[in-house]
Amino acid sequence: MLRIPLLDKLVFELGKMPGIGPKTAQRLAYYLLKSPSENSKQLSATLERLHESIRQCPECFNFTDQAVCYYCQDNNRSDDVLCIVEEPSDIMRIEASGAFRGRYHVLHGSISPLDGVSPDDLTIDQLIKRIDRSEGRIKELILALDSDLEGDTTVLYLMKLFATRAIKLSRIAQGVPIGSDIDYIDDRTMSRALENRIEL
Amino acid sequence: MLRIPLLDKLVFELGKMPGIGPKTAQRLAYYLLKSPSENSKQLSATLERLHESIRQCPECFNFTDQAVCYYCQDNNRSDDVLCIVEEPSDIMRIEASGAFRGRYHVLHGSISPLDGVSPDDLTIDQLIKRIDRSEGRIKELILALDSDLEGDTTVLYLMKLFATRAIKLSRIAQGVPIGSDIDYIDDRTMSRALENRIEL
Repeated sequence: MLRIPLLDKLVFELGKMPGIGPKTAQRLAYYLLKSPSENSKQLSATLERLHESIRQCPECFNFTDQAVCYYCQDNNRSDDVLCIVEEPSDIMRIEASGAFRGRYHVLHGSISPLDGVSPDDLTIDQLIKRIDRSEGRIKELILALDSDLEGDTTVLYLMKLFATRAIKLSRIAQGVPIGSDIDYIDDRTMSRALENRIEL
Repeated sequence: MLRIPLLDKLVFELGKMPGIGPKTAQRLAYYLLKSPSENSKQLSATLERLHESIRQCPECFNFTDQAVCYYCQDNNRSDDVLCIVEEPSDIMRIEASGAFRGRYHVLHGSISPLDGVSPDDLTIDQLIKRIDRSEGRIKELILALDSDLEGDTTVLYLMKLFATRAIKLSRIAQGVPIGSDIDYIDDRTMSRALENRIEL
């Protein structure tokens, strides 16, 4: 309690964000109050416009402020292969690697019965329609889903769903991260890395 | 680069805040975009009003949305003793201890020749006027300043300034934190703790 209702409100609202605890929220609120008022005004104006001007791309469901998103617009990308990701932010990580030049499809989540997320809550229907529309041009789906229970469940569901279709499915490799010390690898990663060993 | 100018702008503005690096800023921006638009709207509205409705208390220079701040208004506090702090946020820490029931005075910084902060940039003039106005009611100043070079410099400056005045000056104790392991205490804290040892 900072004894100033508006400041307490700001702390409360900042504290809703992931990874921002009450102490960090207080520190940020005091920072905003101490810095020139233009800082808060600009942040306020950007936040005000955020949801109005950014929507989902009708093709891949990435966020965009255009009719179609940056990656769907890019003519230098291959239409043969779709990389299936859980969140728009995952695209950033894949782009940063520079190892993928196809198109994306954002599921907006992963199947999680415990959290009440079923396949219908994801953009799987739209993925199937997109593949149908492509009339055979899309040849491979690379599943770049999280290496957790929900990611695994979603991979299994998609494997079943596409079992009868003439489309290649793959999942990004799971194993020991580059630059890591074998001593510090957890049991499940190590067993997966052994299982998926590559012949030299 | 998220390839969406407004989102990049939001990341840039969030990234200006202390302790928020580019990756955290991206995570927060995506969180705001994914959560209901009311969240961003409310945060936006609060930020918009922040600087308009919160100003400095004319008595103690704490932040307030009233004519006089919460602590200056409180009739159950002693007027005899002022706790001198660097920042309004420091008041929170002192209040949380429950060990102080006097009034506050916020310097809004500490003397730092390297950063170009001189005594004139702080509320020291106003502190002297406040003591003069009190006509002898204020009997002690407790300096609760940071234990760093700037805090030490400010303490020395205030000691000189008040040397000829009939007012008691004290500084909060420096030493080994409660619950800490002697093994992990740095040299300067240990030497200060030995110097300031309390006879039993």
